[in-house]
Amino acid sequence: MNDVATYILRISCPDEKGLIYRITQILFERQLNIVGNDEFVDTQRQHFFMRAEFAGACDLDELRAELQQALPAARIELDQPRRRAVVVLATSESHCLGDLLLRHAYGELQAEIRAVISNRAELGSLARRFELPFHWVSSEGLSREEHEAALFEVVDAYTPEYLVLAKYMRILTPDFVARYHSRIINIHHSFLPAFVGASPYRQAFARGVKIIGATAHFVDENLDQGPIIAQSVIPVAHTHSASDMAQAGRDVEKVVLARALKLVFEDRVFVSGNRTIIFD
Amino acid sequence: MNDVATYILRISCPDEKGLIYRITQILFERQLNIVGNDEFVDTQRQHFFMRAEFAGACDLDELRAELQQALPAARIELDQPRRRAVVVLATSESHCLGDLLLRHAYGELQAEIRAVISNRAELGSLARRFELPFHWVSSEGLSREEHEAALFEVVDAYTPEYLVLAKYMRILTPDFVARYHSRIINIHHSFLPAFVGASPYRQAFARGVKIIGATAHFVDENLDQGPIIAQSVIPVAHTHSASDMAQAGRDVEKVVLARALKLVFEDRVFVSGNRTIIFD
Amino acid sequence: MNDVATYILRISCPDEKGLIYRITQILFERQLNIVGNDEFVDTQRQHFFMRAEFAGACDLDELRAELQQALPAARIELDQPRRRAVVVLATSESHCLGDLLLRHAYGELQAEIRAVISNRAELGSLARRFELPFHWVSSEGLSREEHEAALFEVVDAYTPEYLVLAKYMRILTPDFVARYHSRIINIHHSFLPAFVGASPYRQAFARGVKIIGATAHFVDENLDQGPIIAQSVIPVAHTHSASDMAQAGRDVEKVVLARALKLVFEDRVFVSGNRTIIFD
Amino acid sequence: MNDVATYILRISCPDEKGLIYRITQILFERQLNIVGNDEFVDTQRQHFFMRAEFAGACDLDELRAELQQALPAARIELDQPRRRAVVVLATSESHCLGDLLLRHAYGELQAEIRAVISNRAELGSLARRFELPFHWVSSEGLSREEHEAALFEVVDAYTPEYLVLAKYMRILTPDFVARYHSRIINIHHSFLPAFVGASPYRQAFARGVKIIGATAHFVDENLDQGPIIAQSVIPVAHTHSASDMAQAGRDVEKVVLARALKLVFEDRVFVSGNRTIIFD
Repeated sequence: MNDVATYILRISCPDEKGLIYRITQILFERQLNIVGNDEFVDTQRQHFFMRAEFAGACDLDELRAELQQALPAARIELDQPRRRAVVVLATSESHCLGDLLLRHAYGELQAEIRAVISNRAELGSLARRFELPFHWVSSEGLSREEHEAALFEVVDAYTPEYLVLAKYMRILTPDFVARYHSRIINIHHSFLPAFVGASPYRQAFARGVKIIGATAHFVDENLDQGPIIAQSVIPVAHTHSASDMAQAGRDVEKVVLARALKLVFEDRVFVSGNRTIIFD
Repeated sequence: MNDVATYILRISCPDEKGLIYRITQILFERQLNIVGNDEFVDTQRQHFFMRAEFAGACDLDELRAELQQALPAARIELDQPRRRAVVVLATSESHCLGDLLLRHAYGELQAEIRAVISNRAELGSLARRFELPFHWVSSEGLSREEHEAALFEVVDAYTPEYLVLAKYMRILTPDFVARYHSRIINIHHSFLPAFVGASPYRQAFARGVKIIGATAHFVDENLDQGPIIAQSVIPVAHTHSASDMAQAGRDVEKVVLARALKLVFEDRVFVSGNRTIIFD
Repeated sequence: MNDVATYILRISCPDEKGLIYRITQILFERQLNIVGNDEFVDTQRQHFFMRAEFAGACDLDELRAELQQALPAARIELDQPRRRAVVVLATSESHCLGDLLLRHAYGELQAEIRAVISNRAELGSLARRFELPFHWVSSEGLSREEHEAALFEVVDAYTPEYLVLAKYMRILTPDFVARYHSRIINIHHSFLPAFVGASPYRQAFARGVKIIGATAHFVDENLDQGPIIAQSVIPVAHTHSASDMAQAGRDVEKVVLARALKLVFEDRVFVSGNRTIIFD
Repeated sequence: MNDVATYILRISCPDEKGLIYRITQILFERQLNIVGNDEFVDTQRQHFFMRAEFAGACDLDELRAELQQALPAARIELDQPRRRAVVVLATSESHCLGDLLLRHAYGELQAEIRAVISNRAELGSLARRFELPFHWVSSEGLSREEHEAALFEVVDAYTPEYLVLAKYMRILTPDFVARYHSRIINIHHSFLPAFVGASPYRQAFARGVKIIGATAHFVDENLDQGPIIAQSVIPVAHTHSASDMAQAGRDVEKVVLARALKLVFEDRVFVSGNRTIIFD
């Protein structure tokens, strides 16, 4: 039996009548006080999603069992708010990693960054400024599979709940992605689905766009195609070169990535098919 | 007993444990299916707000009575989605009124505009283009009270649920506002609370701002101080004169006003003290 | 010899040293006062662009000849600010056309809309509200070439400088486009280059984007590929259906189209390759 | 005589005919190639502003003298692009300082940060992570004048061109401001002129705004009233507490401050009365 505390309950299941009633009944009978509640029904997929914050004295295992018995088909997640164990992968650009390390150092990220891993060496000094382990896992002379095996060994030793790709510029194999299904978050340097692939700012410049953007998304087996968590844009003009656009883009990228991580780490994001439901 | 249909239930009351449970129980026992649900607790004021959309066969009066009995302290609103009866007040600028008349003509506004009233004559031709009654209620030679009495007589004959001030440039007396409490929506030509009062674009120009905005809000007895429903902004530059800023501002104003009306007419807005809660 | 007035001079030519000096010398020697001036060099294409507003007494033909003699390779445009002759093409959606007609009626569009033409009949009533000629040029039973021949005959009779495609949902042939090269402006219902082609809001919904946009661009022979003039975006959420997204999109579309037209009609837009240079 | 290089020329003076001609003539006669040029006339104040980037072999002192002789009333600035000497003042919040230190470390800031000074001790560890001198100049037991004298002594030793107030929470005296006239840049935690003064996020929450913003501006003798350089906003909702708004605000603040510094350090900003002219 825990002390009075706050909990987060997440439930998703096929939609049917009375779901909210049955769930809130169980909470009410245990004298738990709902302080925040969101529901959404994806009518295309007839699927129900609910996130509740509640307060009170509560035995988590008992409550979880009772809810599961009442809703056998549901996926139930029940936990206290807590910092997530995270490993950050990056390559050579400092802006996203640096921003995360700063937020981490000042408690703004609901995460514990356990290590920074890169396929290159440059960012080691940045990780060390913040006293974090840095691993250089070079891909030189290795096949993609060999490199990922090496990568996985290092990652796995930290038992992260989430991998954050903070401008990690290598493509992950479906096999690797499957190991961290729905737990890899990437920042893509464009307003997806525009400019999929490499050199998006060069593409954006060539196309003469007046706005550029950035997209944070879950990584799935299809490159750049996973569910979108957050997007933002910034206006540009003909006076901007491709490299000016890239610089403007970096400011959007780091803010969008941080926003997405906040949403995910606060348990505010559900994935429904290829779309996200965000209870903000 | 109605046919299968969709209803909107809005409840606000002092917060306590079990509110969602008790409300959804009543809906469940009547075999009503909740298709959308939002709750929010204003923790400062310890007040609970809920908006549910549900479908099913339902006697509205019986359901309302049962809910009221279960929650004696609650304010309960229960209705089918429907077009609101509206009177629009304007003065001489055409952009907001024209935008509303266009949306109205093409069914984009969940409202029936019953009449357009102005203290000036210019906008009569615009109302007539859309075959709407236009009343010119001049204030010339009248005291504020006399003018409002005349205005009220015209307004009242249309029994509107909402008054929309689409750039109506006269100040309403507290007495008039009280008659339509929380049912008058104004578009303010600035990003409130900046540039309260007259000539906001001249003020904005003089201050050299880089962004201008517009604010749609409920009108209460304190000028420009009522609860804010929607705001938006647009960037400006040193190359913009005060009149360029006003022109840019007009585009923001009409979009913000239309957005606010959509939210209000779809029953998505609650007022809590001087703040709005918006279930979008 | 004209009276004191304001003129707009636009020059584009291969870049070389001394261009600004030589141009402003000619203006200075004629005692013309530059009140606004913008230059830009597209360094990739080594091309120079300049737009000057100047005031003074001026024989346009003489000045044009003198400038052309000084800069034989330049394209020189010299004119007074004036309302452009425009024909609007639309299909069945009212929001962009209605917005243009309102701005036109109140002098906010630096254009004279001479006629509205549609491949369908619905928008006739809207054009008539604003006392503008409406032509229904049906494509029924006609080949694309036959329809365009019919269309061209109607359009041509109004001798427009610009064609505005205000949600005209048919594809124009390269032949038609060539006749109005760089003088056809289209509003595209997406943030190009995302969601090229049909049903962009359905695509956007399916992709689960968090932002939707609109793009105004010149039409060239490649569908949706012409130089972009203006873009804007609006945030959306999982609660938005595809049709909600379309509705939100309409508000962006009409504002973006109006902004693009203002820029073009005020002679602020140059095309350089597939990009636009905008002196705002 | 320097090698071929790029220079920035900034001229401001009372407006008159032929200014651009006379300036570009001097550059042309020296075989200097203008690669970027912007002019603006503040018509209210009848003042001319010009910024030119040019390339070529050039004796700066000679050129400056010749320009000054041609335009005796003008303020002429002529220089090569270079990193500005900067001292950063902060108090206890890390987000703006951290962002600047990151950009500085990776060459994204056209500045050399010579020292970080604070009236509190907390941020010392952050400055040390980036190997920068940190000075704690406590105000404890000192009058405002005594504290500023102490502050000035430390600042002055670094001979900075600009002071950046990165959430420095003390008010500077007019005397201090006068010593760094137009060379102190502050980030204000609100969309000025809304929420002038302390606790802007608490004010914003209480007012129920739907958008919050941040403003970077030059500091002059009137608190929060100096010329605005950059502003940006972020949407908020009723679900945001005052502290959520503050967190959202921090992301805007750091981006707006960085943007303003980029503009100033690249010599793109002129001050005209209380407004800025920005050649971006």
